[in-house]
Amino acid sequence: MAVYTDVPDDALNAFVGAYDIGGVLACKGIAEGIENSNYLLQTERGTFILTLYERRVAPEDLPFFLGLMEHLAGRGIACPTPVPGRDGEALRELCGRPAAIVTFLNGMCVRRAGAEHCAALGRATAEMHRAGEDFPPGRENALGLPGWRPLFATCRDSADGIAPGVRREIDEELDFLDAHWPGDAAAGVIHADLFPDNVFFLGDRLSGIIDFYFACNDLYAYELAICLNAWCFEADLSFNVTKARRLIAGYRSVRALEDREIAALPVLARGAALRFFLTRLHDALFPPEGVLVGRKDPLEYLHKLRFHQRVTDPGAYGLET
Amino acid sequence: MAVYTDVPDDALNAFVGAYDIGGVLACKGIAEGIENSNYLLQTERGTFILTLYERRVAPEDLPFFLGLMEHLAGRGIACPTPVPGRDGEALRELCGRPAAIVTFLNGMCVRRAGAEHCAALGRATAEMHRAGEDFPPGRENALGLPGWRPLFATCRDSADGIAPGVRREIDEELDFLDAHWPGDAAAGVIHADLFPDNVFFLGDRLSGIIDFYFACNDLYAYELAICLNAWCFEADLSFNVTKARRLIAGYRSVRALEDREIAALPVLARGAALRFFLTRLHDALFPPEGVLVGRKDPLEYLHKLRFHQRVTDPGAYGLET
Repeated sequence: MAVYTDVPDDALNAFVGAYDIGGVLACKGIAEGIENSNYLLQTERGTFILTLYERRVAPEDLPFFLGLMEHLAGRGIACPTPVPGRDGEALRELCGRPAAIVTFLNGMCVRRAGAEHCAALGRATAEMHRAGEDFPPGRENALGLPGWRPLFATCRDSADGIAPGVRREIDEELDFLDAHWPGDAAAGVIHADLFPDNVFFLGDRLSGIIDFYFACNDLYAYELAICLNAWCFEADLSFNVTKARRLIAGYRSVRALEDREIAALPVLARGAALRFFLTRLHDALFPPEGVLVGRKDPLEYLHKLRFHQRVTDPGAYGLET
Repeated sequence: MAVYTDVPDDALNAFVGAYDIGGVLACKGIAEGIENSNYLLQTERGTFILTLYERRVAPEDLPFFLGLMEHLAGRGIACPTPVPGRDGEALRELCGRPAAIVTFLNGMCVRRAGAEHCAALGRATAEMHRAGEDFPPGRENALGLPGWRPLFATCRDSADGIAPGVRREIDEELDFLDAHWPGDAAAGVIHADLFPDNVFFLGDRLSGIIDFYFACNDLYAYELAICLNAWCFEADLSFNVTKARRLIAGYRSVRALEDREIAALPVLARGAALRFFLTRLHDALFPPEGVLVGRKDPLEYLHKLRFHQRVTDPGAYGLET
């Protein structure tokens, strides 16, 4: 849950006055998006999301994020579209923070994603990758392979407090990933945080992808590896290979996977598990100030990492190579 | 901010299926209402508020609260109307909690209420009192005069930690209020929590009153005394007599105040200040579990109490008696 910045009615009215969206009818702080303050804004012209960007988002990245959403939405991807003010500018300022209004998307997050949801996610992910092919690269993945070692350095001394031997285990994993990372696989703009809270459904139909504030240039198959981690494990951390098969088949029905992307999936899945283990470990050791959510358990991703370490063949993900 | 209970999509769809409001399009936890979990619910038929009642609301009071809202809304008061399910029942259960859907009201809380807002509040309060005249009494004020001494007993030993001498000051105030409380003034159903967060405006026009979960039977003029405390002090705790005059004049333009109600206002204003001082003191000493908001400062209401103690005549509130 978030909403860090309280927007007074007079500041809001002045802000919305710069747009062609009519007068404000209502504006409610919503419990969505961990990193920013989000409001559901109702005006005489419809429903919108107003976002105030808080500390964890680098202001210099905002033109990339907003430009990407506009680009993708213009190509039919169900994602929020930034709404420009009358002066054409979508990125503005409110209460001393960068702020933007984007379109509202219907749909809800699913608590228990089924195989149909995974298939729809795979298709939508591939559609997003294809729609982003002609978007100019603009943001390295700050939480990609080169970022993991420095991130771990901030937690390394306390890592064994999470579980015995973790420090050494992660040191070895970083060495392994450095040695085996498939740097030459197909790359482009990825969302990089396609967790169930960022994907809306109406029934089985995927109705929207939100929260592009980790989007970056990285390997397409790494996105799929994040999804395998985030969508295909059950609550007891068993791996549901049917969901994985449907996810990947859905993806391949829209964008062909290269042989080297397929071959790299086990390594990429290890990397994705490590990435979320590390950020959760960091947040557990250094809780971000003002964040009200319960912390997420890093051990979940240590278990997932160990699962992928035992995978010797992409067939474990339901793939026929 | 609140939202304690996370409602999974499947539970929500089943719950909404019992109503005639169409399918769910979106549902966002909103930062509104300290005591309950509130969701902004969008369905094929419109926008609603879904409330799950948490621990601080006694389930046996819910029929009174919902019945009152229905009664007032039926008489043209701009307040949420409970929406019944197809079986006619408005009070239902969701995620193991009592839950209800009410209509959505446009408008926003004002950060800086002006004299026009106070005048509109006075009129709306009197209209609400008149509309409630034929609503059957059903709930004593648990936070009224008889409740203050037991409430203070839970904090009395720590009270001097807030400011020196507070224990004795409150003891004496309780004695004074017991001796001077105008028990015979006009009484009926009051909202009892008419703070700026519970009143919506569109410009200067009052568009809604929400959060009836402290509503009870008490003196009408005590409601006005709460409003004097909540709306007529500036941020520096100076008393704005213009706002008070407009508030009371607005009220009197709809419902005549009896002479004894007018004469009692200074005592009632002391009582109202004490009531919010005590609940804030209690919450500061015993923070309610799971509540995410920053605590409110009890000292604000101690200062307001002292202001009213110095008032010798209702003229101080801009009244001509």
